[in-house]
Amino acid sequence: MPAELGEFGRIARFLAPLAAGAPGALGLTDDAALIALAPGERLVVTADAIVEGVHFLPGDAPDLVARKLLRCNLSDLAAMAAVPVSYVMTMALPVRCDDLWVERFAAGLAADQAEFGISLLGGDSVSTPGPITLSITAFGRVAAGGEVRRSGARPGDIVYVSGTIGDGALGLLAATGRLVGLDPAERDYLADRYRLPRPRVTLGPLLSGVASAMMDISDGLVGDLDHLAAASGVAAVIDATRLPLSTAAASVMAEDVERLETVLTGGDDYELLFTAAPDADIAGLAAGVGVPVTAIGRIEAGAGVQVLDRDGGPLPLTRRGFRHA
Amino acid sequence: MPAELGEFGRIARFLAPLAAGAPGALGLTDDAALIALAPGERLVVTADAIVEGVHFLPGDAPDLVARKLLRCNLSDLAAMAAVPVSYVMTMALPVRCDDLWVERFAAGLAADQAEFGISLLGGDSVSTPGPITLSITAFGRVAAGGEVRRSGARPGDIVYVSGTIGDGALGLLAATGRLVGLDPAERDYLADRYRLPRPRVTLGPLLSGVASAMMDISDGLVGDLDHLAAASGVAAVIDATRLPLSTAAASVMAEDVERLETVLTGGDDYELLFTAAPDADIAGLAAGVGVPVTAIGRIEAGAGVQVLDRDGGPLPLTRRGFRHA
Repeated sequence: MPAELGEFGRIARFLAPLAAGAPGALGLTDDAALIALAPGERLVVTADAIVEGVHFLPGDAPDLVARKLLRCNLSDLAAMAAVPVSYVMTMALPVRCDDLWVERFAAGLAADQAEFGISLLGGDSVSTPGPITLSITAFGRVAAGGEVRRSGARPGDIVYVSGTIGDGALGLLAATGRLVGLDPAERDYLADRYRLPRPRVTLGPLLSGVASAMMDISDGLVGDLDHLAAASGVAAVIDATRLPLSTAAASVMAEDVERLETVLTGGDDYELLFTAAPDADIAGLAAGVGVPVTAIGRIEAGAGVQVLDRDGGPLPLTRRGFRHA
Repeated sequence: MPAELGEFGRIARFLAPLAAGAPGALGLTDDAALIALAPGERLVVTADAIVEGVHFLPGDAPDLVARKLLRCNLSDLAAMAAVPVSYVMTMALPVRCDDLWVERFAAGLAADQAEFGISLLGGDSVSTPGPITLSITAFGRVAAGGEVRRSGARPGDIVYVSGTIGDGALGLLAATGRLVGLDPAERDYLADRYRLPRPRVTLGPLLSGVASAMMDISDGLVGDLDHLAAASGVAAVIDATRLPLSTAAASVMAEDVERLETVLTGGDDYELLFTAAPDADIAGLAAGVGVPVTAIGRIEAGAGVQVLDRDGGPLPLTRRGFRHA
């Protein structure tokens, strides 16, 4: 059995190639890295950490773990209307993560770097007696003042979401064997959506100057909309009947209408939640990048989030996503 | 006993105040943060992670843990000749880290933010079933082209170090009860140097355009100098007799000359190691900021690091810091 490479060897073999596209990474061999901005640009910075056994399962494929962490960060950049540029990563790995594990992990990063046009810029790799713990700080760029914050929603604005809602939370149920009655293909579809989010990196930047407020849905639609409403000092009213559902999610709902609460309050969607004036051509913008966008409600004066059911009455919700309201 | 605050409560109570000085942090309430650069500036980025039981001891004071992590990052920025600006932090904390622990941790950050003129910009806080795991990505600024890399040392250059060498490694011995014969005041001095490095944030930026190559000493003088020499494609020769030692380190050496190897190859100094042309007024620059700087050797053609003893012969070293050579 070949000896393991050690920290410097692993960096040179598996990580340095990920930095080849970023001259500012200095080959991962210096004390720090460099980032330049064009005149009038701002750097957008976000950070996320994940822990084995908390955010992913001990047996999960290393390449998917890498890609999910990276994509969660890219979703945050998209939610600010930023174009992704690069990232730094710190890894705390137990000894059981051998060279092969790191190689597969790096292969996941390489795949997503190619897909999203970004490069590794730097980082740190340390050992831990505990679970795998990973942290990524991701960088994007946006024209000064072009960032879209959570605080700009105004009464009269329309509330939109990208893609479909609930696949992440239902996907967690599917991935952990709790949607037994479902068609296997639909179960796999949902589990895949949980394991590998699709950050809306093309739609996000297009909404600069168009959306009045924006965030990504990571903790559940209702809870996250409540954060947006609170930051903007407004109320939001959404129609449960207008929620965009995947075919698989619709199948789950047809079996058990109680799953509506999972769809409304579950996490891991990584879709964009945003508001815009009624005359903004959101449909046209979204069509231009091939991302489905759905109007699900409106902003009003007041506070909190209300979900209307098919009769137009308020839907009572009990789970945490809603209790913030 | 009062209930614990929870993640949002802790962020609002203990971390948001740390971001008050950085408008781009957006109060830690948005998806990401913003960084602006002046025309002609570059952002300098470095990241470090630490793990309880590996990089610090389970009982260590939270404020000192926070400050050491922050200072290790500031040392990397100084080594690029950058002025520190801000940082993002991710924390993976076990449940035993209660509100009081976080409060004390944040107090350490607040103290160093005041000392170094920096602010928290963003981050993430998650739970872990394992040891405390912390990651900081720190940002500095430098004029474009003003960064000092490891690769610019040329034959004829003088090799300098700031401060004193070996206190970090001897301090680890002192902090873990392995320097029993030493005077208690000197033992405390060394242990403090280990627990709380002094990053050379004022000297570093002054060396922009002056030092030909620079890095910070984190893994041991000889091993780190070997990295600098390799990056520059040169050899380095240093005199063991010219090493700047603290009074406490000199006391240790007087007891046991074998400790020279610890001084030469031990880590955690966080002093600057740099090279400059013989006619550069390093002494004048250093005196201007009150940081001691010592010439310890010279750069020659060739490869590797040689340490000369008091007779001018090469000193044989066996520990890892030197085996890289």
